[in-house]
Amino acid sequence: MAAIMDHVETEQVLRAHGGGGEMTGRLIAEHLLPKLANECLSPLTDGAVLSWPASSVVFTTDSYVVTPLEFPGGDIGRMAVCGTVNDLAVMGAVPVALSLGLIIEEGLPIATLDRITQSIAVAARQAGVCVVTGDTKVIERRGEPGMFVNTAGIGRLRDGCRLDLGRVEPGDVIIVNGRIAEHGLAIMSVRAGLEFDSDLRSDAEPLADLIGGLFDEGVDVKFLRDATRGGLAGVLADLSEQAQLTVEIDERSIPLSRTAKHAAEMLGLDPLTVANEGKVVCVVAADDAERALRRLQSDPLGRSAAIIGKVTNMHPPLVELITIAGGRRIVQRPYGEELPRIC
Amino acid sequence: MAAIMDHVETEQVLRAHGGGGEMTGRLIAEHLLPKLANECLSPLTDGAVLSWPASSVVFTTDSYVVTPLEFPGGDIGRMAVCGTVNDLAVMGAVPVALSLGLIIEEGLPIATLDRITQSIAVAARQAGVCVVTGDTKVIERRGEPGMFVNTAGIGRLRDGCRLDLGRVEPGDVIIVNGRIAEHGLAIMSVRAGLEFDSDLRSDAEPLADLIGGLFDEGVDVKFLRDATRGGLAGVLADLSEQAQLTVEIDERSIPLSRTAKHAAEMLGLDPLTVANEGKVVCVVAADDAERALRRLQSDPLGRSAAIIGKVTNMHPPLVELITIAGGRRIVQRPYGEELPRIC
Repeated sequence: MAAIMDHVETEQVLRAHGGGGEMTGRLIAEHLLPKLANECLSPLTDGAVLSWPASSVVFTTDSYVVTPLEFPGGDIGRMAVCGTVNDLAVMGAVPVALSLGLIIEEGLPIATLDRITQSIAVAARQAGVCVVTGDTKVIERRGEPGMFVNTAGIGRLRDGCRLDLGRVEPGDVIIVNGRIAEHGLAIMSVRAGLEFDSDLRSDAEPLADLIGGLFDEGVDVKFLRDATRGGLAGVLADLSEQAQLTVEIDERSIPLSRTAKHAAEMLGLDPLTVANEGKVVCVVAADDAERALRRLQSDPLGRSAAIIGKVTNMHPPLVELITIAGGRRIVQRPYGEELPRIC
Repeated sequence: MAAIMDHVETEQVLRAHGGGGEMTGRLIAEHLLPKLANECLSPLTDGAVLSWPASSVVFTTDSYVVTPLEFPGGDIGRMAVCGTVNDLAVMGAVPVALSLGLIIEEGLPIATLDRITQSIAVAARQAGVCVVTGDTKVIERRGEPGMFVNTAGIGRLRDGCRLDLGRVEPGDVIIVNGRIAEHGLAIMSVRAGLEFDSDLRSDAEPLADLIGGLFDEGVDVKFLRDATRGGLAGVLADLSEQAQLTVEIDERSIPLSRTAKHAAEMLGLDPLTVANEGKVVCVVAADDAERALRRLQSDPLGRSAAIIGKVTNMHPPLVELITIAGGRRIVQRPYGEELPRIC
């Protein structure tokens, strides 16, 4: 019986792994710590103490419920790290540390947990952050066992960062750092069992260094937002509504791969509303636009960066797309959930 | 149809509320912000910026998966606030701000969400913290729709706090701030449909002020831990194992109500291993024990505080209980999960 239990324990997450007892300790010690260890996390105290030589803390959180857990180009763990790092970066912060809350359905293969934990470790290293505190819960399964991941993050506000929607004005230029819609389409195509070209992969990437480059370059950056749920359309709708200005974008200049365009058509989706996990919308002063673009393009995560439009004072304020055919259409914020559990 | 949709929208959380579009915005604006509003949260940016006049940040996280969502003495929202505040407090921090990650199952009555959000707001006010950033996801339901809550928290490390397991030594005194096991037993009794006395309620309370009192009093506090999952037994087992010292506790002195004792017997549970949400185990220098006890007892959340045992250098290091009958038994850390989804 003991042998069977031991076997089961190494293969699947059990409800007992979530009880806060001996088995929880072993799950953490054997499967989480070896990959994520650092001096803050390893003592397994109730939290982490970080020295903080800065006058501000930027604090953010996101939960991830994506299915499937693993998909071309990433997994829920990589997304959780990139998403939270990117939320800090678009606030003008240098990401410093993450917390990690895992809610695991019983029956999840330990091998899956190990791959996702490893992926978290790799993404965190890439982003220059550590997971410094965490929590693990186990719940009953619903069908195929999955997991939910919450990451909260803290960062240091950059000196001289002047992000402020109130500074956005007509003439400002809108830049995106690369091809849109690939995250959501990669996941939808897996779910639909469709086989598109192999280059349709999630774009989940940590963007803090890319964004930092703009500040280092002295670009007058006025607004940043990562285009996740709701896609590019959601970000531009927020921008227009909150700044009370019109945003005019040019469909021809929006980076979109042929594969993604094709996939979106097959799935009946508007690429503008599809989630990304490695795309940031930047609003910069017109005079700085070319410099900002060059800086972004010099980074591997911004190679396909493009100026996609500008801010105008047309009334009423809305988001207007100049189509490839030369027409104009109003871009709406997606209403409900077109793509459930995409992030 | 529009009228029907509007009706449905106000009654239940729908999948579309999680899409990051118009409906997500309305759910947040109409049901979350009114109760939680503060200057950091209200702009609904990707995160919060907090000025930080301290040299350290303490950072922690916890997810809550308790069922039922509401129970005598509390609900998942109150627990999520208290639990994270208490994790900061036992690290020696003054809690400052919380993040709030909601994962809601579609079909959850909006009225339930409203009550839990209100409870979060009340508990946060009581604890002197604000929810400064958040995230909302909606997933498909499994049976009766529920929700999961993640809170991460940041706090400022208290000056002069010398919590350090390495300082724990034989002779140190172990204090708990009140009656144990009531949180877990309250929940289990609801689940079992058993009707115990009405005074069996969750003890979910924020303990930061209570704990702060010990530091203000100048008590030499060496170790603090809130006794949640795994109960008092889990904390003492950790203490003994990590300090490599024996912990001797006296069953007669452990605060336990007759109702809780009776409930534990009926449910076949050891009160020592049952989760609490408002109990902290304190290890203090022997000379300071009486002063610490009086200070705790002067706070409403410590009225039933008691000295329950001491640290000794008996070998091998273990947790030993002197029973009411005068016998001795070794207290084991719970192995797996006796009480699923208790916190």
